[in-house]
Amino acid sequence: MPGQVFHKTVPVRFEDCDPAGIGFYPRMLMMVNRLIEDFFAEALDCPWHRLHGRENRAVPTVRLEVDFKGPLYQGDALDLELRVLKVGNSAFTVAVAGSVGGAAKFAVTQVLAYTTAGPGISASPMPDALKAALREFSAG
Amino acid sequence: MPGQVFHKTVPVRFEDCDPAGIGFYPRMLMMVNRLIEDFFAEALDCPWHRLHGRENRAVPTVRLEVDFKGPLYQGDALDLELRVLKVGNSAFTVAVAGSVGGAAKFAVTQVLAYTTAGPGISASPMPDALKAALREFSAG
Amino acid sequence: MPGQVFHKTVPVRFEDCDPAGIGFYPRMLMMVNRLIEDFFAEALDCPWHRLHGRENRAVPTVRLEVDFKGPLYQGDALDLELRVLKVGNSAFTVAVAGSVGGAAKFAVTQVLAYTTAGPGISASPMPDALKAALREFSAG
Amino acid sequence: MPGQVFHKTVPVRFEDCDPAGIGFYPRMLMMVNRLIEDFFAEALDCPWHRLHGRENRAVPTVRLEVDFKGPLYQGDALDLELRVLKVGNSAFTVAVAGSVGGAAKFAVTQVLAYTTAGPGISASPMPDALKAALREFSAG
Repeated sequence: MPGQVFHKTVPVRFEDCDPAGIGFYPRMLMMVNRLIEDFFAEALDCPWHRLHGRENRAVPTVRLEVDFKGPLYQGDALDLELRVLKVGNSAFTVAVAGSVGGAAKFAVTQVLAYTTAGPGISASPMPDALKAALREFSAG
Repeated sequence: MPGQVFHKTVPVRFEDCDPAGIGFYPRMLMMVNRLIEDFFAEALDCPWHRLHGRENRAVPTVRLEVDFKGPLYQGDALDLELRVLKVGNSAFTVAVAGSVGGAAKFAVTQVLAYTTAGPGISASPMPDALKAALREFSAG
Repeated sequence: MPGQVFHKTVPVRFEDCDPAGIGFYPRMLMMVNRLIEDFFAEALDCPWHRLHGRENRAVPTVRLEVDFKGPLYQGDALDLELRVLKVGNSAFTVAVAGSVGGAAKFAVTQVLAYTTAGPGISASPMPDALKAALREFSAG
Repeated sequence: MPGQVFHKTVPVRFEDCDPAGIGFYPRMLMMVNRLIEDFFAEALDCPWHRLHGRENRAVPTVRLEVDFKGPLYQGDALDLELRVLKVGNSAFTVAVAGSVGGAAKFAVTQVLAYTTAGPGISASPMPDALKAALREFSAG
């Protein structure tokens, strides 16, 4: 059933914050990457160790758009929500919203390609099962 | 004289690459952040330890747009070029292009705010000297 | 009751592995640091955001000894066990063992000091409650 | 000629420091790893992209001992000195000293193995040229 949202709450850790005392933005993108990794393993039945291993495929990010809306602090419980915006033949787009206690902290739009792995990276058609699983998380 | 470009060549290191063998995108943004840090210290006479310390200011990123155009590999010499696109009153926009041997690898547009540091972050007008220094790197 | 063990199972993620395909050792130490952070929040009632904030204290690492016993791979479920080896007046020693499916992967002995925070770091006596809580995890 | 020291001065960056305002220890070990990477490329004529690529070998760390002697601050110029303590058949030991303005900050003793790369990691004898190059940096 389309319209699902993949949700996790993660702590803002000591290591995520900078000497100015707030979340350091490249590490927020690391958090988003972890969410996408969990989304693949838990919601799409496509854990990355199998994708990169046996299936010899990869999902490199090709475009990233981020709005940072407010600072994160050490000890915050960060709510992350992932929705699928678009499912193409060998690429897909996700939106990830980060918030703390209902206050928006960042919004990410990220385009990932589905490719062969290894030195000669090239676009590869996504399996139908993966496309169908992705569509469960799109607005429909 | 406007139109200057801030340039560095940096190695793509072991630690920058992922198990798929290519540069991992959050770490490329870390490279871009290092470039901006060097730009402040070397070109703008505004090293961050002084900015965050004595001046009690910060330059958090508020918007980020990235196009990844090709994979980076361990051992690549990555050329980074920074240009200033816009200088506002308490924010500025930079463009950073990454390439290897002339082949484009990524293009970043990044908006940074100039703010007070500490818990109650708020926009702060940039000093005139900083605005003038930034304008040296804009197209004019 | 002394003799308790603080235990977590964490995934070995894509980001933890290097281009040689195995867990990258500085990131394993990051995992150990996260475990110690969780130990403080969940077992010692001393979350770091409160320690570094209101209490104005820090727990910098002063000594680290690590034996790496076998490679970690992407997708591994890493079991981490923390025991307290020694509780001093303003320092304590923990041992952390990492294993996958019962096979030892690394063993860490880490000495942390309890200090004032900020520029003039100096040793500070640990509160009695913290010492007592630490002793619950020592062999007795 | 034995007795050489491999030396670099590196900046302590914004990203290296934690919300307590000082260098974060896992990132200091990342700095040491970068030094070892540069040592291989610049002093041993064995860049890691070639080692991990064409030569299909790796140099995983098997033991690490670190004493942290004083805090690092953002903006510090960190002097790193590497000496070789021991050259075995398929392992070697280095000592790395970190200091700022002559004040000791940390001392690392690190044992690295020389192994085959890939899933079935196993010890591999070091080429004679590599052993000879390493010995140039031992006390003799």
